[in-house]
Amino acid sequence: MKHLLSIADLGRDGIEELLRLTDSFVEVSERSIPKVPALRGRTVVSLFYEDSTRTRLSFETAAKRLSADTMSFSVGSSSVNKGESLRDTVETIHAMGVDAVVVRHKSSGVPWQIASWIDASIINAGDGWHEHPTQALLDCYTIRAELGRPISDLHVAIVGDIKHSRVARSNVLALTLLGARVTLVGPDTLLPPSLEGWGVDVSGDLDDVLPKCDVVYLLRMQLERQHEALVPSLREYSSRFGLDRARVERLPEHALVMHPGPMNRGVEIAADVADLPRAVITQQVRNGVAVRMAVLYQLLGSGASLG
Amino acid sequence: MKHLLSIADLGRDGIEELLRLTDSFVEVSERSIPKVPALRGRTVVSLFYEDSTRTRLSFETAAKRLSADTMSFSVGSSSVNKGESLRDTVETIHAMGVDAVVVRHKSSGVPWQIASWIDASIINAGDGWHEHPTQALLDCYTIRAELGRPISDLHVAIVGDIKHSRVARSNVLALTLLGARVTLVGPDTLLPPSLEGWGVDVSGDLDDVLPKCDVVYLLRMQLERQHEALVPSLREYSSRFGLDRARVERLPEHALVMHPGPMNRGVEIAADVADLPRAVITQQVRNGVAVRMAVLYQLLGSGASLG
Amino acid sequence: MKHLLSIADLGRDGIEELLRLTDSFVEVSERSIPKVPALRGRTVVSLFYEDSTRTRLSFETAAKRLSADTMSFSVGSSSVNKGESLRDTVETIHAMGVDAVVVRHKSSGVPWQIASWIDASIINAGDGWHEHPTQALLDCYTIRAELGRPISDLHVAIVGDIKHSRVARSNVLALTLLGARVTLVGPDTLLPPSLEGWGVDVSGDLDDVLPKCDVVYLLRMQLERQHEALVPSLREYSSRFGLDRARVERLPEHALVMHPGPMNRGVEIAADVADLPRAVITQQVRNGVAVRMAVLYQLLGSGASLG
Repeated sequence: MKHLLSIADLGRDGIEELLRLTDSFVEVSERSIPKVPALRGRTVVSLFYEDSTRTRLSFETAAKRLSADTMSFSVGSSSVNKGESLRDTVETIHAMGVDAVVVRHKSSGVPWQIASWIDASIINAGDGWHEHPTQALLDCYTIRAELGRPISDLHVAIVGDIKHSRVARSNVLALTLLGARVTLVGPDTLLPPSLEGWGVDVSGDLDDVLPKCDVVYLLRMQLERQHEALVPSLREYSSRFGLDRARVERLPEHALVMHPGPMNRGVEIAADVADLPRAVITQQVRNGVAVRMAVLYQLLGSGASLG
Repeated sequence: MKHLLSIADLGRDGIEELLRLTDSFVEVSERSIPKVPALRGRTVVSLFYEDSTRTRLSFETAAKRLSADTMSFSVGSSSVNKGESLRDTVETIHAMGVDAVVVRHKSSGVPWQIASWIDASIINAGDGWHEHPTQALLDCYTIRAELGRPISDLHVAIVGDIKHSRVARSNVLALTLLGARVTLVGPDTLLPPSLEGWGVDVSGDLDDVLPKCDVVYLLRMQLERQHEALVPSLREYSSRFGLDRARVERLPEHALVMHPGPMNRGVEIAADVADLPRAVITQQVRNGVAVRMAVLYQLLGSGASLG
Repeated sequence: MKHLLSIADLGRDGIEELLRLTDSFVEVSERSIPKVPALRGRTVVSLFYEDSTRTRLSFETAAKRLSADTMSFSVGSSSVNKGESLRDTVETIHAMGVDAVVVRHKSSGVPWQIASWIDASIINAGDGWHEHPTQALLDCYTIRAELGRPISDLHVAIVGDIKHSRVARSNVLALTLLGARVTLVGPDTLLPPSLEGWGVDVSGDLDDVLPKCDVVYLLRMQLERQHEALVPSLREYSSRFGLDRARVERLPEHALVMHPGPMNRGVEIAADVADLPRAVITQQVRNGVAVRMAVLYQLLGSGASLG
């Protein structure tokens, strides 16, 4: 495995292997010195054309715990502003001696383009509405760890703006590859035009779906969807698709509440619901570092000891 | 000691202990390799909701000299802009595995809130008009080191915008706990409405105070005070409260001139005064790194050797 | 050697020595762990008053490969915005314990000023229209490595906006000191008013110069020159001074195409020309890291082993 571009490329075995490897890095993270020398002398650069401090810091923390050097290249202060092409920027970064590039870009497919241009490992940290594979991996890991059951036994509802969500797309791929039943829930305007081949159920009625779920996964509501008239109002959206206390009561007792963050408390999730024990949002963040350590280790560190 | 939130919490013994510990780190800073492995594997994050490169770099330098990893989370490019609550931001950072959070925020009390939310050491790097404890510690350390006398023997004048200054507040607390006599000097509009319980003298006449001081501590004049009509004009402020050469002549020969930076040369301090040998402003900065090493070491490194 | 301020100061012997030292760091860069402990415990700060992620990252990568700690101080978020003088900023950074300052500033001469204020090694990373010495060093290194002939045997054409280019100025100095023949090519409006003492030829006819060159070095066209009416239009500029495929045909077979980046493809260089094998632009970037390692090592690491 040279790159991590999509869940689709990974396949079921690839996912399973990364989840197993993540166990080792969860263990490393619990050591008193949570650091291993596996990637000493390697350089990992984050190339973010969209702001995301949370994802960038997660990757950089993962890289540092593997003893790699990190560099951060964000669009605000870069030569991108001087009209340089994406390709020239990438080739420049590569020429400085970079082993992996973690890339986020508003256009789908950019990570593949970059992988075709330079000889370094490329990790897709979100490309347009398309994929965000490490998010799906950390979500699958969290589900398995929290419920202690194989994902193939589970039913996961993903709720909200499916259409514009790379998180939904990568999670649907990963969960169905692992054998879960997935139901997408949202207003018609926020569902993709066609779901053929997705292998999922669809529903417009959250109250109906909740009692049958093991996991309810809430997507962040982009506040601009209101201005685009895709939802009548946030209040209306909330009343139909927001997870409040009354709706939580409809869930089976063991069911998890998940969210990729950052949350809009009071929109897709009620403020008090986000703080329930079954809301495992901080566990997702914690596991995110371990999953990214596993990914970086698999791409760059094969053979290095975790001593 | 788990957090450093305020000078008030530290008390006299706590201050004395940190100042003693600072001596060790001044010594470390003078080594040819000014670095110790005490905090290897620890992560220190700076969470700055107000710009302050100077304070942030001082903490990050301190952390690196203790071999900690550092992360920087500044508000400009963070999910804060996406409407995430302070608490969710903090819990996310914490979930990534952070040992200490250095926080600056425009609202008083935020560091306490954060300390109540997460299990990490919190260091207050300035909260609103309230406190900035490491600034007071580095100032006390500098006074003692430069004058070579116990602080209980000294008279310190703090001059300027006391009302809006966390630096003034923390210094008054620290200096009076250590037994110094403190006189606050400024126009009535820039003094707090009540000084009951502060244990200080007040004066509106700098010329009168100067001959009796061992230290004159000038606060940075926020240029916006002029627009708020709290001072008639910067020129007028300068002529009454700025330290120029003529006023320096009124000081005892041994007296120090101090400033927390960044200076407005020509406003609260004349350009040539800032460069006099008795102006120990760069010593304050230098000692700031050692004081912050002492604080981080005491919070996170107990028992680690300084080999 | 304490500072690297200009090619002029270095002289022929100084250049030769740094180019020889660069060979060692090219070798280090090719190791499986491209890192040496030579500058452990040293701190290198980049102080950039003009954006340049590319140059800043190159220096920071070089510093990290030498195991130095790095700090980055960019003007956007610094106390510069609070009206602090350049000198006070520099003295503050210095007081935190810095061994080298890499400075870029829009005014010529700033690196010299800084060198007169503080006791640290200063590296000029570009001052106004004046000098950018590490760029010239990496260019000379690349020419020698790619052509395998002494620079004294070569003829280099530098094309474009000579007048406003620190890259041109440093390269003319370095190349002529090493004995090359240099021809400057550009419209009269973009040539300096006087070239006395530069030791170069001048031409307004690129087509005439190309067949006699071993290297054609294209400068970045600042797009604002059009608004300043120094060129009639970018199209017109391109047609007279841009390097397209037809013009490449006029070059000797062995001749190199160089550019300091970031490129305006389609203005000073045609898109397909930048990707020809003889265009050694990524080699320039790669050698840039090794040259900067050599400079930092010579300034800070004398005596340290490259084990």
